[in-house]
Amino acid sequence: MKKLAIGIDIGGINTAFGMVDEQGELYAESVISTRKYPLLEDYTAYVADLCNALHTMAESLSFEYELVGIGIGAPNANIHSGLIEKPANLWKFRPDEENRDENRRLFPLATDISKSFNGVKVLITNDANAATIGEMVYGNAKGMKDFVMITLGTGLGSGFVANGEMIYGHDGFAGEFGHVIVERGGRECGCGRKGCLEAYVSATGIKRTAFALMATMNHKSKLRDVPFADFDSAMISAAADEGDPIAKECFRYTGEMLGRALADVVTVTSPEAIFLFGGLAKAGKHIFEPTQHYMEENMMYAFKNKVKLLPSGIQGKNAAILGASALIWQQQK
Amino acid sequence: MKKLAIGIDIGGINTAFGMVDEQGELYAESVISTRKYPLLEDYTAYVADLCNALHTMAESLSFEYELVGIGIGAPNANIHSGLIEKPANLWKFRPDEENRDENRRLFPLATDISKSFNGVKVLITNDANAATIGEMVYGNAKGMKDFVMITLGTGLGSGFVANGEMIYGHDGFAGEFGHVIVERGGRECGCGRKGCLEAYVSATGIKRTAFALMATMNHKSKLRDVPFADFDSAMISAAADEGDPIAKECFRYTGEMLGRALADVVTVTSPEAIFLFGGLAKAGKHIFEPTQHYMEENMMYAFKNKVKLLPSGIQGKNAAILGASALIWQQQK
Repeated sequence: MKKLAIGIDIGGINTAFGMVDEQGELYAESVISTRKYPLLEDYTAYVADLCNALHTMAESLSFEYELVGIGIGAPNANIHSGLIEKPANLWKFRPDEENRDENRRLFPLATDISKSFNGVKVLITNDANAATIGEMVYGNAKGMKDFVMITLGTGLGSGFVANGEMIYGHDGFAGEFGHVIVERGGRECGCGRKGCLEAYVSATGIKRTAFALMATMNHKSKLRDVPFADFDSAMISAAADEGDPIAKECFRYTGEMLGRALADVVTVTSPEAIFLFGGLAKAGKHIFEPTQHYMEENMMYAFKNKVKLLPSGIQGKNAAILGASALIWQQQK
Repeated sequence: MKKLAIGIDIGGINTAFGMVDEQGELYAESVISTRKYPLLEDYTAYVADLCNALHTMAESLSFEYELVGIGIGAPNANIHSGLIEKPANLWKFRPDEENRDENRRLFPLATDISKSFNGVKVLITNDANAATIGEMVYGNAKGMKDFVMITLGTGLGSGFVANGEMIYGHDGFAGEFGHVIVERGGRECGCGRKGCLEAYVSATGIKRTAFALMATMNHKSKLRDVPFADFDSAMISAAADEGDPIAKECFRYTGEMLGRALADVVTVTSPEAIFLFGGLAKAGKHIFEPTQHYMEENMMYAFKNKVKLLPSGIQGKNAAILGASALIWQQQK
């Protein structure tokens, strides 16, 4: 009988899910809103509605199959505990709520979903780790024992694989490479500190760079016609395609910050390859060329010209669902 | 029959070795000079003399035993290849040598020693990795799956363990944490770049700090009576014990540089504990207190007050021999 896994990708806006086989083929998919359930007390309704939607999808298939497990990628998800722990953008306190004890915001999603599916195995980890395992199971990291995945979205996520295994760390939260400090006292980061890598290298980071450069450079640029609130990183990529000097400098600077940070982390885990994934990675040579250049320029001699910088092999609209389902396939091996 | 492993610690000056059981008890030990064999063409004589000395030691035991393997800690040793690869301070070219192709400086020490011992298993890795495995087998990291070892000697070595396994990396040279850049354009490092952590945090690093502080501070200090060439880091420790303000500032600054770098690397591997090992670690609270303070001050919230900073449990004169022998015991498990 065909074996399938469910992959679930929980974002702040939507929760997307699908049924995937071991080769990464998608047999069904659907989506519900996450944003419709903003408060802590909405969590129960969210789980109920998600499980209903999952069952509807599961029953829609016209052939017999075995459901081997459910993999979930979600912010602040901990593979060790099965909890989503104090997520910044999910199921928050009401503004008027008095008991704002953050320990109330531990959501046992793995257990709750497993109950609805006769105790099937449910694994949960953060979205960057899920993408990393997706790269290993379906993507360009097949057969690699030591690699790094960098996911460039609103923030910068990462996953590290050593000896063929995901590094989750003692508490399950390893791989927060977006929060190494690259400029002491630098840009304010959403984490409450200053100078974190993701404040420079991410969709929001490069947007901040664009505005900083509009202040320091005098070149003409169509980027100057767009207000901050309407601006997005795809505009910088489009402008760079047309040779816009500010857009090109944006990418050079972003690649410098990323390349330096990668040169440092290579000394720790010595990966075979580093994969770039996500929106900013789609800028292609604009981001790959300066990142490669500055990574090699800053690399310790022992690692020079050894580490491949590659595009992810699981780009595309279903990458996050594939990544989440890969949590299950990886455990089957 | 008693099972024993041989542990060999190769330093630039001496090569020390001993016979160790699985509990870390030492049954015999000896030493030969490394410095006596400075040139590439001396390597063969070095191996012959080392093997002779090993056999003499092995035959000195008055009871029957089984030799299960030989573990070696040496600079630039690669566990994957069994080679010592282009070591900076061992078996160098003659000054007048014309063919200085560095690929001639790959020394198959594991194979050469195994041949002399009827093909017994010989494992080789760098000294910091050997100390890390020693900590796991005999020391304070027993039972830990995720930890970091920092060895503070002339330089700064490190070993990272994740999921219970040493991170060797794709090329065998992972764990060069001493060469992350902590100050861009900073102090010259032996690796040819500038601003590496070990130029600040190591026996030589803190000595450099002492001289920088004698230039910037006006306080009286007995450290001012010692010329650079005669100075060592133990003097700074002794002066700090007496309340010397320059010595105290030396440790505060060293702890700040180390604590910041540790806060960054915790985001990547999320260890249960970080161990400090070696000469500078013996300064006790002088180094532990500021390192702990600045590590926590710079730590991302998700990891705050979670990671233990601990002294190594395998300090002492035979630590390096124990660490090397632990390579064998770890593989027996």
